[in-house]
Amino acid sequence: MYEGLLKRYKDYLPITDKTPMIGLAEGNTPLIPLPNLSKELGVTLYGKYEGLNPTGSFKDRGMVMAVAKAKEEGAEAVICASTGNTSAAAAAYATRAGMKAYVVIPDGKVALGKLAQAVMYGADIIAIQGNFDEALDAVRELAKTEAVALVNSVNPYRLEGQKTAAFEICEQLDGKAPDVLAIPVGNAGNISAYWKGFKEWDGHFGVGLPRMHGFEAEGAAAIVQGAPIKNPETIATAIRIGNPASWELAEAARDESRGYIHSVTDDEIVNAYKKVAAQDGVFIEPGSAASLAGVIQHVKSGAIKQGETVVCVFTGNGLKDPDTAMSVHEVPISHVEGVDAMREYLRGGVTK
Amino acid sequence: MYEGLLKRYKDYLPITDKTPMIGLAEGNTPLIPLPNLSKELGVTLYGKYEGLNPTGSFKDRGMVMAVAKAKEEGAEAVICASTGNTSAAAAAYATRAGMKAYVVIPDGKVALGKLAQAVMYGADIIAIQGNFDEALDAVRELAKTEAVALVNSVNPYRLEGQKTAAFEICEQLDGKAPDVLAIPVGNAGNISAYWKGFKEWDGHFGVGLPRMHGFEAEGAAAIVQGAPIKNPETIATAIRIGNPASWELAEAARDESRGYIHSVTDDEIVNAYKKVAAQDGVFIEPGSAASLAGVIQHVKSGAIKQGETVVCVFTGNGLKDPDTAMSVHEVPISHVEGVDAMREYLRGGVTK
Repeated sequence: MYEGLLKRYKDYLPITDKTPMIGLAEGNTPLIPLPNLSKELGVTLYGKYEGLNPTGSFKDRGMVMAVAKAKEEGAEAVICASTGNTSAAAAAYATRAGMKAYVVIPDGKVALGKLAQAVMYGADIIAIQGNFDEALDAVRELAKTEAVALVNSVNPYRLEGQKTAAFEICEQLDGKAPDVLAIPVGNAGNISAYWKGFKEWDGHFGVGLPRMHGFEAEGAAAIVQGAPIKNPETIATAIRIGNPASWELAEAARDESRGYIHSVTDDEIVNAYKKVAAQDGVFIEPGSAASLAGVIQHVKSGAIKQGETVVCVFTGNGLKDPDTAMSVHEVPISHVEGVDAMREYLRGGVTK
Repeated sequence: MYEGLLKRYKDYLPITDKTPMIGLAEGNTPLIPLPNLSKELGVTLYGKYEGLNPTGSFKDRGMVMAVAKAKEEGAEAVICASTGNTSAAAAAYATRAGMKAYVVIPDGKVALGKLAQAVMYGADIIAIQGNFDEALDAVRELAKTEAVALVNSVNPYRLEGQKTAAFEICEQLDGKAPDVLAIPVGNAGNISAYWKGFKEWDGHFGVGLPRMHGFEAEGAAAIVQGAPIKNPETIATAIRIGNPASWELAEAARDESRGYIHSVTDDEIVNAYKKVAAQDGVFIEPGSAASLAGVIQHVKSGAIKQGETVVCVFTGNGLKDPDTAMSVHEVPISHVEGVDAMREYLRGGVTK
């Protein structure tokens, strides 16, 4: 029975005899072929659907590792400054490890619905005066003196857990890395973790290496522009980050793999977000769509060549953000009365 | 690479040379050990987490089969009367099969947010005058004369696909059926499908048979009360059904397996819903929690014995219904100012 990443990839993770083998069967996410988009774009396209992790995003991979190490090292609680996927994952794994989770948010600035998961998983929510950066500074400070482990992305074990997605992709493609790995870039930790994972798996099994094509949202494209962005803006909230924590690692991944970090506009993101659901039946978070938006752009520019095998990382589940789904669509409701009217309607819509 | 149920269980499903092997890597959902609840209840408890299917519920299992057969048999579109999980699954698989999906709803009576997934997957929404039963009557009528296949639960292929969850559980438990399978009962199709699946797998591989313990919501407990319920009411909308379509099959599953169909109150459901998230880190739909609520009840009554192996079917993802999550919780926000105040707060909360 598949029980999760720590057991599955024990030999490739920083696990000791004392690491608690917690897990929610995270990882083992499907690599879904996207036949209709493949045909349209002229490449062999897959989606690595990380939205099917237990809390609905790729964060579970890093968090299971970070929380297990926190427990091993004697922490009694975990703490993070987060309003989204990180807080959900931290709370769920803290519960599994028998630890308290503290989620720190800027007072009055967070829609409570965003916290539904963390609250369900039993997290303790602390609202502080100030903005998100100040919340992060506060938790860093507290982690130094208290028996609480900081599990924000500065925690080095997060990337260790996240690299396992690259292992899985190579296994799913029958022991061969794809030509291109397309991935959203926000805090830039995930592109760094995937690259680490591909290099390690290639070292062990000679699977080859992909080119890493990372995509920031245009309004939050610090790496592309070469400078931090004070007030990042994009519909893709999961990658709305103006000063990526793993900036240098991401640039190294790009350069070592002869890849790119480019930006995509919100229009391109929304287009990709709608397209992959409507054409290939996969409902993803808006931020996840940056990868597909980038692939469409790179197929046009020639940075991705016809016939290549391309894996898009879809970092989160579309169910995380139903409001955006409704806001980008006119809901196409047709009002009809009675069976005869419906029959007419269908005959207009169904080719006979 | 795992590609989905039709390929995985081809030999055990009504698949011919002409069946299109569509798939979204549905199935292969984790059987998550629930260690904290196990300890509290004195049983070995697992959750079969069907919320990790591609559209977020167990409906994907039946729908992939139903849509594939519709395509094989020449339908040009699929149609269903649904406002929830069924419409999402129908729309996603229709897209994969290159077919149109029509979702029929009662005009003015459905919150549009419930349709976010179906809309994203490109379904055509038809609103008709009348209530839900009249919508269902209309689609049945239309399916007789038009080239559209009805994929509501009356479609017999749905149960064929759904039975695969029982196969997976036996495989995940190393070739042995659990002692008890606890499952929510709404339309009663799923309990019927699981029982069929267990019997077939036992016939092939001698895995044994579980006792089937089904649980209706008290306000919608038609089978328990022995009569249809005109206006069913429960917080668990996914099982708010007053006249189950698979009534007789469900009673047969109960009787043949020497099991039970009992009811649980909304309070018991909410308690279980909160408990499994807060204690074991699994966030499920309220309707899914009927299974755990029933297990808690049956451990008390002795219908489940200490030490037994019990699998709870968690039919849907908690992310499907964030509103209920927020409505059952006081959001426990503590407002503090500055690092020193936070330190004090943590020291009160963390045992040193």
